[in-house]
Amino acid sequence: MGLVRRQESAADRDRWPVEQKVYRAANEPRGLKQIVLGPDDGATNFAMRVFQIDPGKSSNEEEHPHDHGVYVMRGRARVLLGTEYHEAGPGDFVWVAPDERHCFESLGPEPLQFICVVPAWGEPDARNVPPRPGSKAS
Amino acid sequence: MGLVRRQESAADRDRWPVEQKVYRAANEPRGLKQIVLGPDDGATNFAMRVFQIDPGKSSNEEEHPHDHGVYVMRGRARVLLGTEYHEAGPGDFVWVAPDERHCFESLGPEPLQFICVVPAWGEPDARNVPPRPGSKAS
Repeated sequence: MGLVRRQESAADRDRWPVEQKVYRAANEPRGLKQIVLGPDDGATNFAMRVFQIDPGKSSNEEEHPHDHGVYVMRGRARVLLGTEYHEAGPGDFVWVAPDERHCFESLGPEPLQFICVVPAWGEPDARNVPPRPGSKAS
Repeated sequence: MGLVRRQESAADRDRWPVEQKVYRAANEPRGLKQIVLGPDDGATNFAMRVFQIDPGKSSNEEEHPHDHGVYVMRGRARVLLGTEYHEAGPGDFVWVAPDERHCFESLGPEPLQFICVVPAWGEPDARNVPPRPGSKAS
C-alpha cells in the first residue's frame, strides 16, 4: 500500500519521519542521510534518499554500477562527473551515469540538500535490499 | 556520461531544457510533463519526470504495474491512494504502490508541480523504453 511521507515542519525543510543517519565519507561525519522512500516501504524498483552535506564538506568520491538521479533542493554544489566539474543549485537535476566517478561538494554557506534516486538494489542501508535484476544472486 | 540539467530560470521554476509535453487526461489538457532525466539520457533504471497540473485539474485516475515516487515541489494536492484520500504539499513525498489506484488533484490556487519517479520501463513517452527486467519481451 502507498503512503504519504510529510516533511515534519514547514520551517525545517530537512527532516522526514524516517531514520536519520549520519552521512560519513572517509570515516568523517559529512552530513545526514534519510531514505525517505525505499525498499523498506515495499519499493523494489527505486529508492529516494535525501542527503544533506555540511558546508565545505563533500560526498565520497566514488563510482559504482548503479546510477544516480539527483534533484538539488537547496544550497550549492560543485559536482564532479567523470573528470569534469560543474556547478548546480536549487531546481537543477544531475544524472550520474553507471560506473562514473562522482563527488558532490557543498559550497555553502547553507548546507547542500538534495534528493538522490537510485535503483533499489543500489541502496545498501535499507534492511531489505532487493537483488539486482539479472544478477546471479537473484 | 552524466549530465547537469539546469532549471532554465530562477524566476520560472517550471521548465528544464527538454521537450515539454501537454499532459492530458480523458483527452483533455490538464497541465505539462517533462522527462527531465530518463531512458533517452541513457538511464535504464529509472526516470525522473516533472508534472505540472493546472489548478482544479487532476491526473488520470489509474493503476499500473509500476510504482511512483513523488516529491511535491509546489502547490497542494489531494491524493487518492487505493480508496483513501490524503493531502500533500511542498516538501512531502508520496509513494504509489504497484497496481494501486491513484490520482493527484491540484487544489490550487497555484499549479501543482511534482517530481514523479518511475522505473525506466514505466515511462511510455521516452523514445527508448527499456524492457521490464524478467519480462518475456526482454
